[in-house]
Amino acid sequence: MDFNEKNATDAVLDSFSKIKDKRLKKIMNSIITHLHEVVKEVEPTEDEWMKAITFLTKTGQKCDDRRQEFILLSDVLGVSMLLDAINNRKTKDETETTVLGPFHAPSLTMSYGENIAKNVVGDDCIVSGNVFDVNKNLIAGASIEVWQSGPDGLYDVQKEGDVVDLRATFISLEDGSYLFRTVKPQFYPIPVDGPVGDLLNNLDRHPYRPAHIHFMVKADGYKDLVTHVFIDGDKYLQSDTVFAVKKSLIRKLEKGFDSDENKECYHLEFDIVMEKK
Amino acid sequence: MDFNEKNATDAVLDSFSKIKDKRLKKIMNSIITHLHEVVKEVEPTEDEWMKAITFLTKTGQKCDDRRQEFILLSDVLGVSMLLDAINNRKTKDETETTVLGPFHAPSLTMSYGENIAKNVVGDDCIVSGNVFDVNKNLIAGASIEVWQSGPDGLYDVQKEGDVVDLRATFISLEDGSYLFRTVKPQFYPIPVDGPVGDLLNNLDRHPYRPAHIHFMVKADGYKDLVTHVFIDGDKYLQSDTVFAVKKSLIRKLEKGFDSDENKECYHLEFDIVMEKK
Repeated sequence: MDFNEKNATDAVLDSFSKIKDKRLKKIMNSIITHLHEVVKEVEPTEDEWMKAITFLTKTGQKCDDRRQEFILLSDVLGVSMLLDAINNRKTKDETETTVLGPFHAPSLTMSYGENIAKNVVGDDCIVSGNVFDVNKNLIAGASIEVWQSGPDGLYDVQKEGDVVDLRATFISLEDGSYLFRTVKPQFYPIPVDGPVGDLLNNLDRHPYRPAHIHFMVKADGYKDLVTHVFIDGDKYLQSDTVFAVKKSLIRKLEKGFDSDENKECYHLEFDIVMEKK
Repeated sequence: MDFNEKNATDAVLDSFSKIKDKRLKKIMNSIITHLHEVVKEVEPTEDEWMKAITFLTKTGQKCDDRRQEFILLSDVLGVSMLLDAINNRKTKDETETTVLGPFHAPSLTMSYGENIAKNVVGDDCIVSGNVFDVNKNLIAGASIEVWQSGPDGLYDVQKEGDVVDLRATFISLEDGSYLFRTVKPQFYPIPVDGPVGDLLNNLDRHPYRPAHIHFMVKADGYKDLVTHVFIDGDKYLQSDTVFAVKKSLIRKLEKGFDSDENKECYHLEFDIVMEKK
Protein backbone atom coordinates (compact mmCIF):
# COMPACT_ATOMS: atom_id res chain seq x y z
CA MET A 1 0.00 0.00 0.00
CA ASP A 2 1.38 3.41 -0.95
CA PHE A 3 1.91 6.07 1.71
CA ASN A 4 -1.11 8.41 1.48
CA GLU A 5 -3.04 10.98 3.49
CA LYS A 6 -5.07 8.32 5.28
CA ASN A 7 -2.33 5.90 6.30
CA ALA A 8 0.57 8.39 6.65
CA THR A 9 0.56 8.59 10.45
CA ASP A 10 0.21 4.82 10.89
CA ALA A 11 3.04 4.24 8.41
CA VAL A 12 5.41 6.41 10.44
CA LEU A 13 4.25 4.93 13.77
CA ASP A 14 4.83 1.44 12.30
CA SER A 15 8.42 2.44 11.53
CA PHE A 16 8.92 2.78 15.31
CA SER A 17 7.97 -0.84 15.94
CA LYS A 18 11.54 -1.85 16.78
CA ILE A 19 12.26 0.89 19.34
CA LYS A 20 13.50 -0.69 22.55
CA ASP A 21 13.23 2.51 24.62
CA LYS A 22 9.54 2.58 25.62
CA ARG A 23 9.66 6.16 26.88
CA LEU A 24 11.16 7.34 23.56
CA LYS A 25 8.47 5.41 21.69
CA LYS A 26 5.70 7.12 23.69
CA ILE A 27 7.26 10.54 23.06
CA MET A 28 7.75 9.94 19.31
CA ASN A 29 4.23 8.52 18.90
CA SER A 30 2.77 11.66 20.45
CA ILE A 31 4.99 14.00 18.41
CA ILE A 32 4.25 12.25 15.09
CA THR A 33 0.50 12.02 15.71
CA HIS A 34 0.19 15.72 16.50
CA LEU A 35 2.72 16.91 13.91
CA HIS A 36 0.76 15.08 11.20
CA GLU A 37 -2.50 16.49 12.58
CA VAL A 38 -1.10 20.00 12.18
CA VAL A 39 -0.16 19.27 8.55
CA LYS A 40 -3.62 17.81 7.85
CA GLU A 41 -5.45 20.72 9.51
CA VAL A 42 -3.34 23.46 7.98
CA GLU A 43 -2.57 21.87 4.57
CA PRO A 44 0.61 23.95 4.15
CA THR A 45 1.74 24.88 0.67
CA GLU A 46 5.30 23.96 -0.31
CA ASP A 47 6.22 27.63 0.20
CA GLU A 48 4.76 27.72 3.71
CA TRP A 49 6.56 24.48 4.61
CA MET A 50 9.83 25.98 3.30
CA LYS A 51 9.23 29.08 5.47
CA ALA A 52 8.86 26.80 8.50
CA ILE A 53 12.06 24.92 7.59
CA THR A 54 13.90 28.25 7.23
CA PHE A 55 12.51 29.56 10.55
CA LEU A 56 13.68 26.46 12.45
CA THR A 57 17.08 26.56 10.74
CA LYS A 58 17.61 30.23 11.62
CA THR A 59 16.48 29.58 15.20
CA GLY A 60 19.14 26.90 15.59
CA GLN A 61 21.78 29.04 13.97
CA LYS A 62 21.03 31.99 16.30
CA CYS A 63 22.10 29.87 19.29
CA ASP A 64 25.57 30.17 20.80
CA ASP A 65 27.21 30.03 24.25
CA ARG A 66 25.30 33.11 25.38
CA ARG A 67 22.03 32.76 23.49
CA GLN A 68 19.46 29.94 23.33
CA GLU A 69 16.85 30.92 20.75
CA PHE A 70 14.91 27.61 20.97
CA ILE A 71 14.39 28.14 24.73
CA LEU A 72 13.14 31.63 23.89
CA LEU A 73 10.76 30.09 21.34
CA SER A 74 9.54 27.58 23.94
CA ASP A 75 9.02 30.52 26.33
CA VAL A 76 6.94 32.73 24.00
CA LEU A 77 4.76 29.78 22.92
CA GLY A 78 3.84 28.99 26.54
CA VAL A 79 5.60 25.61 26.39
CA SER A 80 8.14 26.42 29.11
CA MET A 81 5.43 27.52 31.55
CA LEU A 82 3.25 24.52 30.71
CA LEU A 83 6.23 22.30 31.44
CA ASP A 84 6.80 24.20 34.69
CA ALA A 85 3.14 23.66 35.67
CA ILE A 86 3.35 19.93 34.93
CA ASN A 87 6.65 19.40 36.71
CA ASN A 88 5.81 21.51 39.76
CA ARG A 89 2.21 20.74 40.66
CA LYS A 90 1.52 22.67 43.85
CA THR A 91 0.88 20.37 46.77
CA LYS A 92 0.82 22.58 49.88
CA ASP A 93 1.71 26.17 50.62
CA GLU A 94 5.16 26.15 49.06
CA THR A 95 6.22 29.14 46.97
CA GLU A 96 5.04 28.76 43.39
CA THR A 97 7.54 28.18 40.61
CA THR A 98 8.05 29.97 37.32
CA VAL A 99 10.41 29.76 34.33
CA LEU A 100 14.20 29.65 34.68
CA GLY A 101 14.61 31.89 31.62
CA PRO A 102 17.67 32.12 29.38
CA PHE A 103 19.82 34.41 31.57
CA HIS A 104 20.85 32.13 34.42
CA ALA A 105 24.68 32.14 34.74
CA PRO A 106 27.30 31.38 37.40
CA SER A 107 27.59 33.91 40.23
CA LEU A 108 29.68 34.51 43.36
CA THR A 109 28.49 34.00 46.92
CA MET A 110 27.94 37.26 48.82
CA SER A 111 27.28 38.01 52.48
CA TYR A 112 24.04 39.16 54.11
CA GLY A 113 23.40 42.79 53.16
CA GLU A 114 25.85 43.07 50.25
CA ASN A 115 24.95 44.97 47.08
CA ILE A 116 24.68 42.93 43.85
CA ALA A 117 24.54 46.07 41.65
CA LYS A 118 28.18 46.82 40.95
CA ASN A 119 28.23 48.41 37.51
CA VAL A 120 24.82 50.01 37.15
CA VAL A 121 23.14 53.05 38.72
CA GLY A 122 19.44 52.90 39.52
CA ASP A 123 16.86 53.25 42.28
CA ASP A 124 18.34 51.63 45.41
CA CYS A 125 16.37 48.72 46.72
CA ILE A 126 16.65 46.31 49.65
CA VAL A 127 15.25 42.81 49.10
CA SER A 128 14.73 40.65 52.17
CA GLY A 129 12.69 37.84 53.64
CA ASN A 130 12.82 34.53 55.43
CA VAL A 131 13.15 30.97 54.21
CA PHE A 132 10.56 28.62 55.75
CA ASP A 133 9.25 25.16 55.21
CA VAL A 134 5.52 24.57 54.71
CA ASN A 135 5.11 24.11 58.48
CA LYS A 136 6.57 27.58 59.16
CA ASN A 137 9.88 26.20 60.41
CA LEU A 138 12.73 28.57 59.51
CA ILE A 139 15.45 27.12 57.26
CA ALA A 140 19.05 28.18 57.94
CA GLY A 141 21.83 27.66 55.39
CA ALA A 142 19.60 27.73 52.33
CA SER A 143 21.36 28.84 49.15
CA ILE A 144 19.47 31.76 47.57
CA GLU A 145 20.69 32.57 44.06
CA VAL A 146 19.29 35.78 42.56
CA TRP A 147 19.67 37.48 39.15
CA GLN A 148 17.95 40.39 37.46
CA SER A 149 18.10 42.96 34.69
CA GLY A 150 19.43 46.46 35.27
CA PRO A 151 17.61 49.78 34.84
CA ASP A 152 18.38 49.50 31.08
CA GLY A 153 16.47 46.21 30.92
CA LEU A 154 19.62 44.21 30.20
CA TYR A 155 21.24 41.29 32.04
CA ASP A 156 25.03 41.26 32.40
CA VAL A 157 25.32 38.36 29.90
CA GLN A 158 23.64 40.50 27.23
CA LYS A 159 26.45 43.05 27.39
CA GLU A 160 29.94 43.07 25.90
CA GLY A 161 32.70 41.73 28.13
CA ASP A 162 32.49 39.17 30.90
CA VAL A 163 31.54 41.37 33.85
CA VAL A 164 29.34 39.55 36.37
CA ASP A 165 26.73 41.99 37.67
CA LEU A 166 23.26 41.97 39.23
CA ARG A 167 23.57 38.34 40.27
CA ALA A 168 24.85 36.57 43.41
CA THR A 169 24.20 33.72 45.79
CA PHE A 170 23.29 34.36 49.46
CA ILE A 171 23.01 31.93 52.36
CA SER A 172 20.10 32.25 54.81
CA LEU A 173 21.17 33.04 58.39
CA GLU A 174 20.44 30.97 61.53
CA ASP A 175 17.00 32.59 61.79
CA GLY A 176 16.25 31.77 58.10
CA SER A 177 16.56 35.39 57.03
CA TYR A 178 18.26 36.82 53.95
CA LEU A 179 18.81 40.41 52.79
CA PHE A 180 20.61 41.98 49.87
CA ARG A 181 20.93 45.39 48.27
CA THR A 182 20.35 46.01 44.58
CA VAL A 183 18.63 48.47 42.23
CA LYS A 184 14.93 48.39 41.36
CA PRO A 185 14.37 45.86 38.53
CA GLN A 186 12.86 47.14 35.29
CA PHE A 187 10.51 45.62 32.72
CA TYR A 188 12.34 44.67 29.52
CA PRO A 189 11.91 43.11 26.09
CA ILE A 190 13.20 39.62 25.45
CA PRO A 191 15.92 39.66 22.74
CA VAL A 192 14.14 40.52 19.47
CA ASP A 193 17.09 40.53 17.05
CA GLY A 194 16.50 36.90 16.04
CA PRO A 195 13.81 34.65 14.52
CA VAL A 196 11.72 34.68 17.72
CA GLY A 197 11.62 38.49 17.64
CA ASP A 198 10.50 38.33 14.01
CA LEU A 199 7.83 35.80 14.97
CA LEU A 200 6.45 38.01 17.77
CA ASN A 201 6.36 40.89 15.31
CA ASN A 202 4.42 38.79 12.78
CA LEU A 203 2.07 37.71 15.58
CA ASP A 204 1.44 41.37 16.52
CA ARG A 205 2.63 40.58 20.05
CA HIS A 206 4.84 42.80 22.23
CA PRO A 207 8.11 41.29 23.53
CA TYR A 208 7.98 42.65 27.12
CA ARG A 209 8.32 40.97 30.48
CA PRO A 210 7.22 42.76 33.66
CA ALA A 211 9.92 43.74 36.19
CA HIS A 212 11.11 40.81 38.31
CA ILE A 213 14.03 39.27 40.17
CA HIS A 214 14.89 35.60 39.56
CA PHE A 215 15.36 33.26 42.53
CA MET A 216 16.79 29.75 42.61
CA VAL A 217 16.66 28.43 46.19
CA LYS A 218 18.21 25.19 47.37
CA ALA A 219 18.27 23.63 50.84
CA ASP A 220 19.22 20.14 52.03
CA GLY A 221 16.21 17.85 52.07
CA TYR A 222 14.03 20.28 50.09
CA LYS A 223 13.04 20.49 46.43
CA ASP A 224 14.97 23.06 44.43
CA LEU A 225 12.79 26.12 43.85
CA VAL A 226 13.04 28.18 40.62
CA THR A 227 10.88 31.29 40.70
CA HIS A 228 10.66 35.10 40.36
CA VAL A 229 9.34 37.89 42.53
CA PHE A 230 7.35 40.38 40.42
CA ILE A 231 6.76 44.08 41.20
CA ASP A 232 3.15 45.08 41.79
CA GLY A 233 1.78 47.70 39.39
CA ASP A 234 4.00 46.85 36.43
CA LYS A 235 2.16 47.51 33.18
CA TYR A 236 3.16 44.13 31.69
CA LEU A 237 1.91 41.93 34.57
CA GLN A 238 -1.21 41.02 32.55
CA SER A 239 0.62 40.29 29.28
CA ASP A 240 4.06 38.87 30.13
CA THR A 241 5.28 37.63 26.75
CA VAL A 242 6.44 34.34 28.30
CA PHE A 243 3.26 33.80 30.42
CA ALA A 244 5.30 33.47 33.64
CA VAL A 245 3.38 35.71 36.10
CA LYS A 246 1.60 34.11 39.05
CA LYS A 247 -0.40 36.31 41.43
CA SER A 248 1.18 34.71 44.50
CA LEU A 249 4.61 35.96 43.32
CA ILE A 250 3.70 39.68 43.05
CA ARG A 251 4.95 41.94 45.84
CA LYS A 252 4.55 45.67 46.55
CA LEU A 253 7.70 47.76 46.23
CA GLU A 254 7.50 49.92 49.39
CA LYS A 255 9.31 53.22 49.87
CA GLY A 256 11.68 52.91 52.84
CA PHE A 257 14.91 54.10 54.38
CA ASP A 258 18.27 52.33 54.43
CA SER A 259 19.48 53.20 57.94
CA ASP A 260 22.87 51.52 57.50
CA GLU A 261 23.63 53.62 54.45
CA ASN A 262 21.57 56.61 55.60
CA LYS A 263 19.58 57.13 52.40
CA GLU A 264 16.13 56.57 50.97
CA CYS A 265 15.52 53.30 49.21
CA TYR A 266 12.82 50.92 48.06
CA HIS A 267 12.09 47.76 49.98
CA LEU A 268 10.81 44.45 48.62
CA GLU A 269 9.80 41.71 51.08
CA PHE A 270 9.72 38.17 49.70
CA ASP A 271 9.41 35.15 51.99
CA ILE A 272 10.28 31.77 50.50
CA VAL A 273 8.45 28.57 51.43
CA MET A 274 10.25 25.32 50.58
CA GLU A 275 8.72 21.90 50.08
CA LYS A 276 10.30 18.70 51.41
CA LYS A 277 11.70 16.31 48.81
CA MET B 1 -6.07 34.08 36.53
CA ASP B 2 -2.63 32.45 36.60
CA PHE B 3 -1.38 30.45 33.62
CA ASN B 4 -1.95 26.78 34.52
CA GLU B 5 -2.29 23.35 32.91
CA LYS B 6 -5.98 23.89 32.17
CA ASN B 7 -5.90 27.36 30.63
CA ALA B 8 -2.38 27.27 29.12
CA THR B 9 -3.44 26.68 25.52
CA ASP B 10 -6.23 29.27 25.65
CA ALA B 11 -3.84 31.79 27.18
CA VAL B 12 -1.41 31.42 24.27
CA LEU B 13 -4.19 31.43 21.66
CA ASP B 14 -5.56 34.62 23.27
CA SER B 15 -2.14 36.23 22.76
CA PHE B 16 -2.75 35.84 18.99
CA SER B 17 -5.93 37.93 19.11
CA LYS B 18 -4.32 40.88 17.35
CA ILE B 19 -2.85 38.95 14.37
CA LYS B 20 -3.98 40.58 11.13
CA ASP B 21 -2.77 37.72 8.91
CA LYS B 22 -5.64 35.21 9.11
CA ARG B 23 -3.67 32.40 7.49
CA LEU B 24 -0.83 32.83 10.00
CA LYS B 25 -3.39 32.83 12.82
CA LYS B 26 -4.86 29.52 11.61
CA ILE B 27 -1.38 27.99 11.33
CA MET B 28 -0.27 29.19 14.78
CA ASN B 29 -3.53 28.09 16.42
CA SER B 30 -3.03 24.58 15.05
CA ILE B 31 0.66 24.45 16.03
CA ILE B 32 0.04 25.69 19.58
CA THR B 33 -2.93 23.41 20.18
CA HIS B 34 -1.05 20.29 19.11
CA LEU B 35 2.30 21.30 20.63
CA HIS B 36 0.60 21.77 24.01
CA GLU B 37 -1.24 18.45 23.55
CA VAL B 38 2.12 16.71 23.09
CA VAL B 39 3.43 18.29 26.31
CA LYS B 40 0.29 17.28 28.21
CA GLU B 41 0.33 13.70 26.88
CA VAL B 42 4.04 13.14 27.35
CA GLU B 43 4.64 15.23 30.51
CA PRO B 44 8.33 15.72 29.66
CA THR B 45 10.80 16.14 32.49
CA GLU B 46 13.03 19.22 32.43
CA ASP B 47 15.86 16.95 31.22
CA GLU B 48 13.79 15.55 28.36
CA TRP B 49 12.73 19.04 27.33
CA MET B 50 16.38 20.14 27.37
CA LYS B 51 17.27 17.16 25.16
CA ALA B 52 14.62 18.29 22.67
CA ILE B 53 15.97 21.87 22.75
CA THR B 54 19.49 20.55 22.14
CA PHE B 55 18.31 18.29 19.28
CA LEU B 56 16.57 21.16 17.49
CA THR B 57 19.56 23.45 18.04
CA LYS B 58 22.01 20.89 16.61
CA THR B 59 19.68 20.24 13.66
CA GLY B 60 19.72 23.94 12.77
CA GLN B 61 23.45 24.19 13.24
CA LYS B 62 24.10 21.19 10.92
CA CYS B 63 22.56 23.14 8.02
CA ASP B 64 24.74 24.94 5.48
CA ASP B 65 24.73 25.69 1.74
CA ARG B 66 24.99 21.98 0.91
CA ARG B 67 23.04 20.38 3.75
CA GLN B 68 19.49 20.94 5.03
CA GLU B 69 19.06 18.82 8.15
CA PHE B 70 15.53 20.10 8.93
CA ILE B 71 14.32 18.91 5.49
CA LEU B 72 15.93 15.57 6.25
CA LEU B 73 14.06 15.51 9.58
CA SER B 74 10.80 16.35 7.79
CA ASP B 75 11.55 13.50 5.36
CA VAL B 76 12.22 10.76 7.94
CA LEU B 77 9.14 11.75 9.99
CA GLY B 78 6.86 11.34 6.95
CA VAL B 79 6.00 15.06 6.94
CA SER B 80 7.46 15.75 3.49
CA MET B 81 5.49 12.89 1.89
CA LEU B 82 2.30 13.89 3.72
CA LEU B 83 2.75 17.40 2.35
CA ASP B 84 3.35 15.93 -1.10
CA ALA B 85 0.14 13.88 -0.82
CA ILE B 86 -1.86 16.95 0.23
CA ASN B 87 -0.42 19.26 -2.41
CA ASN B 88 -0.63 16.74 -5.27
CA ARG B 89 -3.95 14.94 -4.93
CA LYS B 90 -4.19 12.66 -7.95
CA THR B 91 -7.02 13.65 -10.24
CA LYS B 92 -6.64 11.55 -13.39
CA ASP B 93 -3.94 9.30 -14.80
CA GLU B 94 -1.05 11.71 -14.39
CA THR B 95 2.27 10.34 -13.11
CA GLU B 96 2.31 10.31 -9.32
CA THR B 97 4.57 12.67 -7.40
CA THR B 98 7.09 12.01 -4.66
CA VAL B 99 9.56 14.02 -2.57
CA LEU B 100 12.06 16.47 -4.05
CA GLY B 101 14.72 15.38 -1.57
CA PRO B 102 17.72 17.40 -0.42
CA PHE B 103 20.02 16.78 -3.43
CA HIS B 104 18.42 18.84 -6.18
CA ALA B 105 21.01 21.23 -7.67
CA PRO B 106 21.56 23.17 -10.92
CA SER B 107 22.49 21.09 -13.97
CA LEU B 108 23.37 21.61 -17.65
CA THR B 109 21.09 20.83 -20.58
CA MET B 110 22.19 17.77 -22.58
CA SER B 111 21.06 16.34 -25.92
CA TYR B 112 18.99 13.22 -26.56
CA GLY B 113 21.15 10.15 -25.88
CA GLU B 114 23.97 11.84 -23.94
CA ASN B 115 25.52 10.17 -20.90
CA ILE B 116 25.06 11.94 -17.53
CA ALA B 117 27.62 9.69 -15.79
CA LYS B 118 30.90 11.53 -16.34
CA ASN B 119 33.04 10.75 -13.30
CA VAL B 120 31.75 7.41 -12.08
CA VAL B 121 32.00 3.84 -13.38
CA GLY B 122 29.04 1.49 -12.98
CA ASP B 123 26.59 -0.73 -14.82
CA ASP B 124 25.63 1.10 -18.03
CA CYS B 125 21.96 1.93 -18.31
CA ILE B 126 19.72 3.59 -20.89
CA VAL B 127 16.69 5.45 -19.53
CA SER B 128 13.99 6.39 -22.02
CA GLY B 129 10.31 7.06 -22.43
CA ASN B 130 7.72 9.46 -23.79
CA VAL B 131 6.06 12.50 -22.31
CA PHE B 132 2.25 12.46 -22.69
CA ASP B 133 -0.72 14.35 -21.38
CA VAL B 134 -3.55 12.49 -19.66
CA ASN B 135 -5.33 12.14 -23.03
CA LYS B 136 -2.31 10.34 -24.55
CA ASN B 137 -1.22 13.34 -26.60
CA LEU B 138 2.57 13.46 -26.91
CA ILE B 139 4.28 16.56 -25.47
CA ALA B 140 7.28 17.96 -27.37
CA GLY B 141 9.71 20.42 -25.77
CA ALA B 142 9.13 19.30 -22.18
CA SER B 143 12.07 19.95 -19.86
CA ILE B 144 13.11 16.72 -18.11
CA GLU B 145 15.57 17.27 -15.27
CA VAL B 146 17.10 14.12 -13.78
CA TRP B 147 19.52 13.46 -10.91
CA GLN B 148 20.68 10.33 -9.10
CA SER B 149 23.30 8.80 -6.83
CA GLY B 150 26.27 6.89 -8.22
CA PRO B 151 27.25 3.25 -7.62
CA ASP B 152 28.79 4.38 -4.30
CA GLY B 153 25.39 5.70 -3.17
CA LEU B 154 26.56 9.32 -3.23
CA TYR B 155 25.27 12.37 -5.11
CA ASP B 156 27.79 14.77 -6.63
CA VAL B 157 26.94 17.44 -4.03
CA GLN B 158 27.95 15.06 -1.24
CA LYS B 159 31.51 14.89 -2.55
CA GLU B 160 34.46 17.26 -2.24
CA GLY B 161 34.88 19.78 -5.06
CA ASP B 162 32.23 21.29 -7.30
CA VAL B 163 32.04 18.65 -10.07
CA VAL B 164 28.53 18.35 -11.54
CA ASP B 165 27.82 14.67 -12.24
CA LEU B 166 24.88 12.29 -12.62
CA ARG B 167 22.47 15.15 -13.27
CA ALA B 168 21.28 16.95 -16.43
CA THR B 169 18.24 18.44 -18.13
CA PHE B 170 16.87 16.93 -21.38
CA ILE B 171 14.21 18.28 -23.76
CA SER B 172 11.60 15.89 -25.20
CA LEU B 173 11.75 15.56 -29.02
CA GLU B 174 8.94 16.30 -31.51
CA ASP B 175 7.44 12.86 -30.86
CA GLY B 176 7.54 13.42 -27.06
CA SER B 177 10.42 11.00 -26.56
CA TYR B 178 13.48 11.35 -24.35
CA LEU B 179 16.51 9.09 -23.84
CA PHE B 180 19.71 9.39 -21.80
CA ARG B 181 22.59 7.17 -20.83
CA THR B 182 23.75 6.75 -17.22
CA VAL B 183 24.80 4.06 -14.74
CA LYS B 184 22.42 1.88 -12.76
CA PRO B 185 21.31 3.76 -9.65
CA GLN B 186 22.07 2.22 -6.25
CA PHE B 187 20.24 2.19 -2.91
CA TYR B 188 21.92 4.44 -0.37
CA PRO B 189 21.69 5.75 3.20
CA ILE B 190 20.57 9.31 3.81
CA PRO B 191 23.35 11.34 5.53
CA VAL B 192 23.66 9.94 9.05
CA ASP B 193 26.51 12.07 10.42
CA GLY B 194 24.09 14.58 11.99
CA PRO B 195 21.24 14.76 14.55
CA VAL B 196 18.79 13.03 12.15
CA GLY B 197 21.16 10.07 11.81
CA ASP B 198 21.40 9.90 15.61
CA LEU B 199 17.60 10.02 15.82
CA LEU B 200 17.17 7.13 13.35
CA ASN B 201 19.69 5.17 15.37
CA ASN B 202 17.78 5.82 18.61
CA LEU B 203 14.56 4.83 16.83
CA ASP B 204 16.16 1.52 15.69
CA ARG B 205 15.41 2.47 12.08
CA HIS B 206 17.72 1.93 9.08
CA PRO B 207 18.65 5.02 7.00
CA TYR B 208 18.32 3.48 3.50
CA ARG B 209 16.43 4.59 0.42
CA PRO B 210 15.79 2.15 -2.46
CA ALA B 211 17.54 2.83 -5.80
CA HIS B 212 15.85 5.58 -7.82
CA ILE B 213 16.35 8.39 -10.32
CA HIS B 214 14.81 11.81 -9.57
CA PHE B 215 12.72 13.53 -12.25
CA MET B 216 11.48 17.13 -12.36
CA VAL B 217 9.43 17.62 -15.54
CA LYS B 218 8.09 20.95 -16.78
CA ALA B 219 6.06 21.77 -19.90
CA ASP B 220 4.13 24.89 -20.91
CA GLY B 221 0.53 24.72 -19.75
CA TYR B 222 1.16 21.71 -17.48
CA LYS B 223 1.72 21.35 -13.73
CA ASP B 224 5.36 20.85 -12.74
CA LEU B 225 5.95 17.21 -11.85
CA VAL B 226 8.44 16.17 -9.13
CA THR B 227 8.88 12.42 -8.88
CA HIS B 228 11.26 9.42 -8.95
CA VAL B 229 11.43 6.18 -10.91
CA PHE B 230 12.26 3.25 -8.59
CA ILE B 231 13.96 -0.05 -9.58
CA ASP B 232 11.86 -3.17 -9.12
CA GLY B 233 13.31 -5.75 -6.73
CA ASP B 234 15.27 -3.32 -4.54
CA LYS B 235 15.39 -4.62 -0.97
CA TYR B 236 14.42 -1.25 0.51
CA LEU B 237 11.24 -0.68 -1.55
CA GLN B 238 9.09 -1.75 1.45
CA SER B 239 10.93 0.35 4.03
CA ASP B 240 12.19 3.52 2.32
CA THR B 241 13.31 5.64 5.29
CA VAL B 242 11.54 8.71 3.85
CA PHE B 243 8.31 6.85 2.90
CA ALA B 244 8.54 8.02 -0.75
CA VAL B 245 7.85 4.81 -2.73
CA LYS B 246 4.64 4.55 -4.78
CA LYS B 247 3.89 1.32 -6.64
CA SER B 248 3.04 3.17 -9.86
CA LEU B 249 6.60 4.55 -9.96
CA ILE B 250 8.42 1.18 -9.86
CA ARG B 251 9.88 -0.10 -13.16
CA LYS B 252 11.74 -3.27 -14.13
CA LEU B 253 15.39 -2.85 -15.04
CA GLU B 254 15.65 -4.95 -18.20
CA LYS B 255 18.87 -6.39 -19.63
CA GLY B 256 19.43 -5.01 -23.13
CA PHE B 257 21.99 -4.01 -25.74
CA ASP B 258 23.21 -0.52 -26.63
CA SER B 259 23.50 -0.85 -30.42
CA ASP B 260 24.96 2.67 -30.88
CA GLU B 261 27.78 1.90 -28.47
CA ASN B 262 27.87 -1.83 -29.27
CA LYS B 263 27.77 -3.12 -25.68
CA GLU B 264 25.45 -4.73 -23.19
CA CYS B 265 23.52 -2.40 -20.94
CA TYR B 266 20.46 -2.19 -18.72
CA HIS B 267 17.33 -0.47 -19.96
CA LEU B 268 14.74 1.40 -17.88
CA GLU B 269 11.53 2.56 -19.58
CA PHE B 270 9.65 5.38 -17.83
CA ASP B 271 6.78 7.22 -19.54
CA ILE B 272 5.69 10.51 -18.02
CA VAL B 273 2.08 11.67 -17.96
CA MET B 274 1.55 15.39 -17.34
CA GLU B 275 -1.55 17.11 -15.98
CA LYS B 276 -2.88 20.38 -17.39
CA LYS B 277 -2.60 23.41 -15.09
